[in-house]
This record gives sequence, structure tokens and C-alpha cells, in this order.
Amino acid sequence: MGGDGAPDVVIDATRQVLSDRHDLEIVLVGPEDRLLPALAGGAGGKLPDRLTIHHAEHVLAADVSAAAAIRRGRGSSLWQAIDLAEQGRVDAVVSGGSTGALMALSRQKIGMLPGIERPALMAALPSRQQQLVWMLDLGANINVDAPRLLEFAQLGAVAVKVIENRAPRIGLLNIGSEPGKGPDVIREAARLIEAQETLDYAGFVEADQVFAGAVDLVVCDGFSGNILLKGAEGAIRLLFERMREEFQGTLGGMVARRGMKRLHDRLDPARHNGAPMLGVRKTVIKSHGSACSRGFARAISLAALEVERDLINRLDEQLWASY
Amino acid sequence: MGGDGAPDVVIDATRQVLSDRHDLEIVLVGPEDRLLPALAGGAGGKLPDRLTIHHAEHVLAADVSAAAAIRRGRGSSLWQAIDLAEQGRVDAVVSGGSTGALMALSRQKIGMLPGIERPALMAALPSRQQQLVWMLDLGANINVDAPRLLEFAQLGAVAVKVIENRAPRIGLLNIGSEPGKGPDVIREAARLIEAQETLDYAGFVEADQVFAGAVDLVVCDGFSGNILLKGAEGAIRLLFERMREEFQGTLGGMVARRGMKRLHDRLDPARHNGAPMLGVRKTVIKSHGSACSRGFARAISLAALEVERDLINRLDEQLWASY
Repeated sequence: MGGDGAPDVVIDATRQVLSDRHDLEIVLVGPEDRLLPALAGGAGGKLPDRLTIHHAEHVLAADVSAAAAIRRGRGSSLWQAIDLAEQGRVDAVVSGGSTGALMALSRQKIGMLPGIERPALMAALPSRQQQLVWMLDLGANINVDAPRLLEFAQLGAVAVKVIENRAPRIGLLNIGSEPGKGPDVIREAARLIEAQETLDYAGFVEADQVFAGAVDLVVCDGFSGNILLKGAEGAIRLLFERMREEFQGTLGGMVARRGMKRLHDRLDPARHNGAPMLGVRKTVIKSHGSACSRGFARAISLAALEVERDLINRLDEQLWASY
Repeated sequence: MGGDGAPDVVIDATRQVLSDRHDLEIVLVGPEDRLLPALAGGAGGKLPDRLTIHHAEHVLAADVSAAAAIRRGRGSSLWQAIDLAEQGRVDAVVSGGSTGALMALSRQKIGMLPGIERPALMAALPSRQQQLVWMLDLGANINVDAPRLLEFAQLGAVAVKVIENRAPRIGLLNIGSEPGKGPDVIREAARLIEAQETLDYAGFVEADQVFAGAVDLVVCDGFSGNILLKGAEGAIRLLFERMREEFQGTLGGMVARRGMKRLHDRLDPARHNGAPMLGVRKTVIKSHGSACSRGFARAISLAALEVERDLINRLDEQLWASY
């Protein structure tokens, strides 16, 4: 029930994934009186195969805080979905709702992997290389110390390996690439990450180098990660707007607009929607609130991939091994 | 002598400014044996009117650290230029060299305005509005407390008023716009800035909203500011690269490329090159190391504007008034 176009976007995505993949079952969690009409086009027809509905009394607001979700979330669709995961009745949860609520309820109800205190949110960015660049934390982990940044590197490295089938080169986001640069906590984190033999540490990476694809995995605190991601979104939006003005009403503009459309699609966040919430004992994927059905389908597929490749157990092993 | 194309870029910029403005005198500081041939096309001809050369024995490297500049900077072109300002023989210094060296030498040799401990670097960004958005700090002020963020707001507000002739709406960079969001230091800074009657405080601003032109002046610590600025640069570079690929070899592409060129020029950093270093007792302007001559000329003109409008005294008054 979360995200701008819910439940229709989620239902469309569900249909796409179920028709593409015959080995998946999907449970939609939400008020029956909203899901059933949307599913059957109002006629109360038969549900698609491998799709079931799990009723929830109410729905949390998109901007609900973590604290409010814990206080008043009982019985909501998000609460119930997480309950199903906690009870082992589903393998993964995908949500387009409030990040804070998803983090808080996952942490409280499902619990964390050994030694991890709070979930970290990892997302993919486009880069000048073919591969995506992954970055974490993009959740609300604001005040982090060096061991926490090491933890992000460990969680992210295992997750990228599972998702992309390659060991990522890891960079630490900083304001200079020379070893002496930046705040103490980042320099200390560099020492910790470098000392881990299982991690392929490539050094500091500056914000512009992230989009150049200098590394495969960027580690940062949640504040810097948010600034980088949203700043880039804002700059690209500005550029597309100026392009539209530039090309408006010209003959070449008509041709250019088609190219711009393709370009927009290539850089479309839907192509890499789905942010793994790492450190939780179950697979939890955050979908962007403004994701279209193709984007939401991508988030569901990512959840399936994490489960098939046993990400949670592999994270668990990695964490035990590093103690 | 600083910046990628020095001294030729600086000399071209100097010629442009001197021919546009007959009320300015410019002193070029650097080794005579490099400046004279570059100025006279190797022939040792007559210098342009209102241009003099001040000899310096050596030149600091582009990547020299602040500490090294102070230890080994004596006699260098940057050291001498700052000396001239300190002695009142010039009204302003413009440099395309190392930011760290410029900050450290300005602070040590010229000194700071009352109550200011370290300079703050302010720069302009394009936005979806017509006006530029100014942001500080972009220097190396990494670990800042709330009173320091208030100080940035005070310095920035006076400077934007002087440069743009309007009182800026001020935003604090944060990861959410609701009052309870973000780190303690930012929430505390919001209380301090809001309490100042002379400042027009508009609340928290998220990174994407900076480019939407939601406010005129963005206050942040130097780490976040660097991440935002460089991240946006990297994202825009990625987009232009993808555009070139998209339009390559097509008929429409030829037309589109002309539009892209105009667009690139409109977003060109040269249009707003020149970052005031605020808090120093003299006008000091940092030019981007990769600035072209038009960009460097813009930085010189900005220095002239600050001096004409008496920025330093106005900052001084503002700072005394707030004690």
C-alpha cells in the first residue's frame, strides 16, 4: 500500500513478475476492500495464480515517522507484511512506504544480524561505466563511527557480490583522494577497511568520481549519501529542464527530444529501483515512493534474487567470520 | 600563477578586464621571466596600461597543502600577492591556486574579521530560477558546530546582499525539510539562525531543492558542501557524456549538438566563476583551477565589485552588531 501509485502500481508490478516467473508466489498485504476491486477491475473475479491477499486493517501514511510506526503501526499493512516475514510465511518484504517506518519495524520485529545495530540502506546509481555503482548508507544512519562504516563495507560487499556476481572494489566517500584528507572518522574507517583481507579496498573516492564509476561500492554515512543522491537528482532535473527549453519549438528539437526521451529512459531510476535494507535477518527491499510498475517489478525481482542466492546466510557467515 | 592554464589564462583575463574597465589597476604576481615573455609574446614589448608586474621568486604547486604553504611559501607568488593585500598596496587578491594554501596564507598573513576563526568559501550554483544560488562553506571547514553555521549564514547573507543587491532567503542543508530532521548540530543551528532578526531564514533545504532555487543562500559544513557540489558536477558530466553517445552520427544529432553546446555554455561554471573567501580582512577570491580566461575575468570582476561595495566593512559592522 506504499508509494505514490499504490495499490495499482504494486498490482501491475505483481502481474508482470508473476507472468515472467512461474516459480514465485506473491502475497499482497493491505485492506481487502481496496485490493480486491483494484485486482478484479471492480468485478470480484478470480485472483491470478500464485497471488494471495493478506488482509490488513489500515495503512500507514507515507510520511509516518519511525517512532509513530512503532507506536501506532500494529495491524497496518506494513506491520503485517513484516509479521509474515518474521513468521517465515514469506521470504522477503518489498515496500514503497516510509523508509523510516520500514527500517524501524523491520529492526524491531524481525531483528538484526549478529553485531549489527541498525539497518543500512543500499541503492544503485548509474555511472559512466556499464555497471551500476552501489552506495550505502542511504538510510538514516547519520552519526556513524569508523566501525560502523566498516560494517557498511562488509554488508555491502557481500550484497553486491550476491547481486552482481563480482567482488566489488570499495571506495570511501571523502572530500579528497589523498590519504590524509577528510574527517578523522573516515580516515580511521579507511584503516579498518584496508585491514580486512576479504575486502577489496580502493581508497577514498570524491563525489564526482562516484558517477565516473571509479569503484563498484561507495561507503558513506547516511547524511552524505542522501546529499550526494538528492543533489545529483536535482542537478539532472535542472539539466533536463534546461534542455527542454533549449529544444522547444525547433525542428532539430523534435529529433533531439526523441533522443532525450531515450536518454531519460537509460538513466531512469526504474532501471535500478529497489534498495536492499541490509543487516535485517530477512530480505527487505525498499522501493522508491515514486516508482512506476516496471520499477516496482524490478524491486520484487531483486528481492527474489537475494532469496535465491541466500544473501541473509551469506551476510551472517561474513559477520561471524569477522569477529 | 595558479590554475591549469597559468599564466596565459590569467594574462588573457587581465587584458579583457582592463579593456572593459578603465577604473581598475591590476598587479600580476609571479616570476618575471615567465610573465614578461607571456605578456609581450616573447618580444619584451611595452606592458598594457594599468598593468604592473610584481616579481616572485617561485610558485607553489597546485596541490600544496596548507601546512606546506605556510612552511615553505615565503617568497612564492601567492605569498607575495597576499603580502600586497596585507600592506594595503592592492585592494583584493584573486588566485586560481591551491584552496588550502590560499586559505591558510590569507588567514595567517591578513588575519580574520572579529570572532571569525577560519575563512569560509562561498560559491554560486545554477538553479531552475533565473538567479544563482550561493552556498557556503565549500572550503575545508569540516567539523563545524552550530555557532559556526550561524557565522556562515551571517557572512553569506551580507556577501550575497552586496553582490546581488538583495537580501537572500537562507536555507540550511539537511536530509529532510521537517523541523525534527537531521543531526543535532543542524537543528541547533536552525534555532540560532531563526533567532537573528537580520536574517531571512527559510528552513531546512534538501539537496535536490538547492538546484530548484528554493532559497538564495545555502548554509552547510564544508564536507556536505563539497559532496553536493562535486556530486552534481559528476552527474551532469555523466549526462552530457550519455547525450553525446545518444546523438552521435545522427542527422538530428547534429542539430541537437548545437543545442547541447548552447546548453553547456548556459550551465558553464565560467559564468559564475569566483568564490569569495569570507571572514578574511581583505577581499580574497578563489578562481576554479580549470577556469578559462572568461571565467578568470569573472573572478577579477567579482573582486572589484566586492571592493567597490565595501564588503569587508559591511561584514565587519554585521559581526560587531551581533555581539
